[in-house]
Amino acid sequence: TKIVTLPGDGIGPEICAPAVELLEHFVPGVEVEEHVFGGASIDAHGTALTDEVLAAAKTADAVLLAAVGGPKWDTTDPSAPRPEQGLLGIRKALGLYANLRPVRPLPALYDSSALKREILDGTDMLVVRELTGGIYFGEKTRTETDASDLCHYTVEEVDRIARVAFEAARGRRNLVHSVDKANVMETSRQWRQVVHEVHGADFADVQLEDQLVDSCAMQLIANPTQFDVIVTENLFGDILSDAAAMLSGSLGMLPSASLGNPDGPGLFEPVHGSAPDIAGQGVANPLAMFLSTAMLLRHGLAMETEAAALESAVDQALDAGLRTRDLGGTAGTDEAYAAVRKYL
Amino acid sequence: TKIVTLPGDGIGPEICAPAVELLEHFVPGVEVEEHVFGGASIDAHGTALTDEVLAAAKTADAVLLAAVGGPKWDTTDPSAPRPEQGLLGIRKALGLYANLRPVRPLPALYDSSALKREILDGTDMLVVRELTGGIYFGEKTRTETDASDLCHYTVEEVDRIARVAFEAARGRRNLVHSVDKANVMETSRQWRQVVHEVHGADFADVQLEDQLVDSCAMQLIANPTQFDVIVTENLFGDILSDAAAMLSGSLGMLPSASLGNPDGPGLFEPVHGSAPDIAGQGVANPLAMFLSTAMLLRHGLAMETEAAALESAVDQALDAGLRTRDLGGTAGTDEAYAAVRKYL
Ligand SMILES: CC(C)[C@H](C(=O)O)[C@@H](O)C(=O)O
Ligand SMILES: CC(C)[C@H](C(=O)O)[C@@H](O)C(=O)O
Repeated sequence: TKIVTLPGDGIGPEICAPAVELLEHFVPGVEVEEHVFGGASIDAHGTALTDEVLAAAKTADAVLLAAVGGPKWDTTDPSAPRPEQGLLGIRKALGLYANLRPVRPLPALYDSSALKREILDGTDMLVVRELTGGIYFGEKTRTETDASDLCHYTVEEVDRIARVAFEAARGRRNLVHSVDKANVMETSRQWRQVVHEVHGADFADVQLEDQLVDSCAMQLIANPTQFDVIVTENLFGDILSDAAAMLSGSLGMLPSASLGNPDGPGLFEPVHGSAPDIAGQGVANPLAMFLSTAMLLRHGLAMETEAAALESAVDQALDAGLRTRDLGGTAGTDEAYAAVRKYL
Repeated sequence: TKIVTLPGDGIGPEICAPAVELLEHFVPGVEVEEHVFGGASIDAHGTALTDEVLAAAKTADAVLLAAVGGPKWDTTDPSAPRPEQGLLGIRKALGLYANLRPVRPLPALYDSSALKREILDGTDMLVVRELTGGIYFGEKTRTETDASDLCHYTVEEVDRIARVAFEAARGRRNLVHSVDKANVMETSRQWRQVVHEVHGADFADVQLEDQLVDSCAMQLIANPTQFDVIVTENLFGDILSDAAAMLSGSLGMLPSASLGNPDGPGLFEPVHGSAPDIAGQGVANPLAMFLSTAMLLRHGLAMETEAAALESAVDQALDAGLRTRDLGGTAGTDEAYAAVRKYL
């Protein structure tokens, strides 16, 4: 079993190191191959994703990514390389069109959330975000006087992500909210039509609701327990999943899995960024990274038992009082790792 | 003084009627001209906005709109007329590029909000949403196999909305958060550059912060008191202002003003929709409509004293216990109107 790790920038390397130890614990004989990526790769090679790294990722069984970016590479120069290009590039090149972001606030962390306990209680949702289409990858133009971005979707792109959402719902509470802006956008009207066609043809047993993106942003806050699976396009998924992340009390808690080609590797990464402001201090919360490692075990290596064991260890550590800074406590990265190890 | 009212659909007519009484109370001799709009106009004339209604709006001192839309006009037929086209059409035709959405949760309503009291306390923000550009008005395409929407902005469109935001901040706490997705979108990179140019040239006394839209969606929930003025493009403004609206406990509380051409009328409307599910029952919360009427008095007729008096009456009625259904109470529309009238 070969895993490619991309520690990236900022707190990336600090949270990646203990995750690799977890991998070695769960996957006997695992071969872990580390590569530079993002800003670090720009510094070393002038580009956020080199051909070598992409080739290595393609031969891996799964890719574990920590985080990219930082003020050092922030620029208004449109021709300068940017760390995010590595992220967008690897998603696209590996065909990772389905981004899964589970949100299940833990009772132990209700106090860290901005939302009231009675609103959070029972929340358990999965955001399925389309990851390789839409305005992220459409044609861009820029002149002295104006700029444009094209949002483009094919029927096929919508069809396949809809199937991922309906399949996921069957293993959960059998409810899908499809989120769009069909009262304004043509891509949304196509989205809605295709989602209903896929539903009618192959998933009529799953309950399907349409919701407008503005309304969904409200409902996520006002009444999050109504959701089971949310499926939406790339940009809406970016915004809504970050909003949903706040239900968990901290962005430092949320994992994600990006899947696509059944023969190729999946990519597993925390939802949070590289937090350059706290990098190098050993205080970063590694739990989203550990939970991403659990998703790697589950979706990347079909090791469900091990994935569940790791998730349960994280839960138990939190129940026992583990709190990193973002959760209002004082535990550092090492302490968090040790607390989780205790329950393995 | 001539005011054009557009009651529209659903609960629109019910909440518009008492708002007209408030107008007549505050503006002696006001001439109120009512027109069909939205779905009602589709039924009567086959289009959501007729030339006659647009012409009437153009000659008014201000336009007061309630709400449009409903399941009756929901359709997947791309060529069928839709109520929202009236809304988008009148915004564009009147040049209303600046949509102002103030969000100031009232302590009396903290219990109705999903957020904790300590998170809400002190929240007072103004969302300035660009309203006549972006993906709402860009070219759309649709074929059997794909669809697209173009997001397009000119430098001039960004420049003028940035000025509105900076001016507004000067009359408030002098802080502007400019929200974009500059790590992905070209229109966002242009947005960021133009906002900084306008800032450097004419508003260096105002504090300016850039924020990514996904991060802003989180911060609105986690830490809303950090914001004073938020300025953003059309689609982001739609999503973020609805999320921010939930801080107030109910969408039924939020007014908006859409301004543009200094010689033309402004448009004033609640942020909420037409709520077809409760239409005709006399239970709709009219307070967002009343607060929109106050914005009309302030921005449309330069009657600051009267605007403040109406806002204060709404506050006092809530302090005295007024609660419509959406706020967890039992008061109907008439009762809400009577409760507010008591304090005028
Ligand atoms: C860094 C950025 C390009 C990225 C995105 O918008 O997809 C991030 O926000 C995410 O959600 O993974
Ligand atoms: C009805 C819809 C077209 C409209 C919009 O998206 O602008 C509404 O959501 C709003 O915010 O006024």
